[in-house]
Amino acid sequence: MLLYQHLASQLRAQIAQGSLRAGERLPSIRQLAHSHGVSIATAVQACLQLEREGLAQARPRSGYFVRAASPPLPATLPSRRRTPGTVSNPMLQDVLDMLARSDLLPLHSATPSLTLLPQSALTASLSRCLRRMPSAALDYAPPQGHLSLRRLIAQRYAQVGVTVSADEIIITAGAMEAISLSLRTLTQPGDVVLVESPTYHGILQAVAALKLKVLEVPNLPDRGIDVERLELLLRQHQVRAAVLVPNFNNPLGSVTDDEAKQALLKSCARHKTIVIEDDIYGELAWSGQRPAPLRRWDRHGGVITCGSYSKILAAGLRVGWLVGGDWTDALLRTKYFSTVGSASLPQLALADYLERHDLQRHLRQLCRALADNAQRMHEAIARHWPSSTRACTPQGGLSLWLQLPGMNAKTLFDEALREGIGTSPGMLFSSRGEYADCLRLSCGLPWSVALDRALRRLGQLADRA
Amino acid sequence: MLLYQHLASQLRAQIAQGSLRAGERLPSIRQLAHSHGVSIATAVQACLQLEREGLAQARPRSGYFVRAASPPLPATLPSRRRTPGTVSNPMLQDVLDMLARSDLLPLHSATPSLTLLPQSALTASLSRCLRRMPSAALDYAPPQGHLSLRRLIAQRYAQVGVTVSADEIIITAGAMEAISLSLRTLTQPGDVVLVESPTYHGILQAVAALKLKVLEVPNLPDRGIDVERLELLLRQHQVRAAVLVPNFNNPLGSVTDDEAKQALLKSCARHKTIVIEDDIYGELAWSGQRPAPLRRWDRHGGVITCGSYSKILAAGLRVGWLVGGDWTDALLRTKYFSTVGSASLPQLALADYLERHDLQRHLRQLCRALADNAQRMHEAIARHWPSSTRACTPQGGLSLWLQLPGMNAKTLFDEALREGIGTSPGMLFSSRGEYADCLRLSCGLPWSVALDRALRRLGQLADRA
Repeated sequence: MLLYQHLASQLRAQIAQGSLRAGERLPSIRQLAHSHGVSIATAVQACLQLEREGLAQARPRSGYFVRAASPPLPATLPSRRRTPGTVSNPMLQDVLDMLARSDLLPLHSATPSLTLLPQSALTASLSRCLRRMPSAALDYAPPQGHLSLRRLIAQRYAQVGVTVSADEIIITAGAMEAISLSLRTLTQPGDVVLVESPTYHGILQAVAALKLKVLEVPNLPDRGIDVERLELLLRQHQVRAAVLVPNFNNPLGSVTDDEAKQALLKSCARHKTIVIEDDIYGELAWSGQRPAPLRRWDRHGGVITCGSYSKILAAGLRVGWLVGGDWTDALLRTKYFSTVGSASLPQLALADYLERHDLQRHLRQLCRALADNAQRMHEAIARHWPSSTRACTPQGGLSLWLQLPGMNAKTLFDEALREGIGTSPGMLFSSRGEYADCLRLSCGLPWSVALDRALRRLGQLADRA
Repeated sequence: MLLYQHLASQLRAQIAQGSLRAGERLPSIRQLAHSHGVSIATAVQACLQLEREGLAQARPRSGYFVRAASPPLPATLPSRRRTPGTVSNPMLQDVLDMLARSDLLPLHSATPSLTLLPQSALTASLSRCLRRMPSAALDYAPPQGHLSLRRLIAQRYAQVGVTVSADEIIITAGAMEAISLSLRTLTQPGDVVLVESPTYHGILQAVAALKLKVLEVPNLPDRGIDVERLELLLRQHQVRAAVLVPNFNNPLGSVTDDEAKQALLKSCARHKTIVIEDDIYGELAWSGQRPAPLRRWDRHGGVITCGSYSKILAAGLRVGWLVGGDWTDALLRTKYFSTVGSASLPQLALADYLERHDLQRHLRQLCRALADNAQRMHEAIARHWPSSTRACTPQGGLSLWLQLPGMNAKTLFDEALREGIGTSPGMLFSSRGEYADCLRLSCGLPWSVALDRALRRLGQLADRA
């Protein structure tokens, strides 16, 4: 082995073991030469070798950097449903059974670990509201939700350039109830609803429960919703509503850019398709730049935007909302006659928390932590999983999406479960069980030895599955 | 005026003014004679006169007692829907607008005042759970609900002779979500659902939201559900489900007795009609004798029983449940894909409360208070309202049902609202706007001068409406 090959193999091992991490700078040419006792030319040759292998990348005047380990998933995903059909998902009961378990490493749950959330500030707010307004905490909240909280939600929209009135906000049990209420209010059985592929299985199941038909528009890892295809589908079919996740699609983490969002809105307005926007991950931009919700460009009152505190403050409080526009009264009736209203104390406590704390600051910390976790997980996957593994490079949210051609995600799911690890098999995210060689993992768990070990074990299981 | 007539008119005035209250003993014959300076014979004649007028009642060896002031509403209510039809209620939006107001005397709300509930014990339980298990309070509860609470619910059923497993209980946002989930899971648009007439407007609206057709079976003030008519209707129509309130019908407060309950179950089993039992008032038997839910006699797995803590502990916690039997898995799926799950802390806190306190003791106190309030309200109505007013004599629950032939409950509703008093107009309780001369008032507010004044004012408004 030549000297430069020996040095290259040492560096390769350091990258594989994670002592040199993706995005980190390699030691300088001078340092490498010095520490390994080789010439400058040999050190340069070693770095060039790593660059040819795709492991390192030169940046002008900065030296060599370790490249992200996994190549991004190519945009060619399986074919999508082009004619309306019904949702089927044979794995649904398995997943629901998993959700009842509390003994798993919850890589299936796209929710941040409590350690990343302001637990003590939130419990302090809950306690304070109990002390200061025990009656309001125990009595019915107004069906629409406490006005104090609705005002704070409207203010937050204003901060990101979106005009929303507190009067058109309805507090819900998370974004899931917001989506379900919207569909229940605006559709009839047999109506066609457009969804993304892949998309969150909760959306698919909410659609299935109402006996609606689905059409799928691709969501592409590198640019989000395929707006040209959307226009084509709306032209070909009468589509009552589109349930879309333009900001950090679950599971891909992709973003639909502002221009595409506006084109999308024009298409939907032209074809009288109501947009139900699931913006639950909108605040989780790893770059710190929150992308605007569709509502920002809505000129025709054609959008219902759904949001939640589940992914940024506390899922167990079950507080989300919808921005209902002209449909607010109708949506409120549906809400009243299915749950009367949401629990009072969680609403009061969130309003108290938001008045006392800097949400933006918490979001910055949370996003940094998620991006860091995702990076470490990708590196571990690159180390431990078969080399044919592919991974998306999400821009935000809580999910990593992996593909391992030939793998059976159902087998992996079952075997991982037996070893105490929860996963979300790819088939969940398709209306007809596609993505059987894909897998969603949560990046909401802080990095730990146990997590590294679990990822290694998953890699072994995936190899056999 | 003869002497006995003079004495009778004095006693009549005392009854009208409320200084002698229904159920109270009149002074003894000897006392009356002595204090009014008349003979024993004259005092006897005066009491006989009051008895002839229906104002007093002799009890052997105990003397004379003031009779309940209002005669019970006769069982002949308006005709009911005998062919399946759709629900219409033009007053719905008015009522929803009223619910958003917090400045009213809430005679419209069939909920006990917080002063009748164990507020400090409940806030102590909430605080304790926050201190001892902050993570469980902020994190998702299992979709089905915390097992600790489900076990306690099953134990309470066991106390009243009903065998229920914690595994078939799903925690819901009150009984309303339990009913809505049941209908959403078990019916298809266009199915026929049987309801009582009158019945709770929430049931009617949940049915309407799902585009179901309704058939109505009479609920009679003196004996509850008309089981013969029910059998007839089930024979004539294919009825998918029956949403019934056998224990303390809202608004009548009537009870269907055990024998009728068993006959009802046989009819429904014979015709394959699923029973959705709204037992939300079951624990509020003013006599202290809790009537059993239908589930007790269910031999065919044909009943889903819905209950709640809203009417007995705290409505604002939004914790109710359903007992799903063989449908539990399907119901849980509907729950998961419409709200994911119920808020965690309220469930933990209710389990804590129930483990530390004697629920039965609280219920005894609450029921005594409600019965006493209802009695005083009936007396006030007898004093202040037109003499043609009729009232049911409920056996439990939280409602008084009044009828004033010729009155327009919509006019009364509007005028009362202008004066800060909430009422529930009769039309709400019918699928096609019947009972326009009826009114439901809550008996959940503790007696007060303000309440007496409001009832007097309502009487004046009702007289003109």
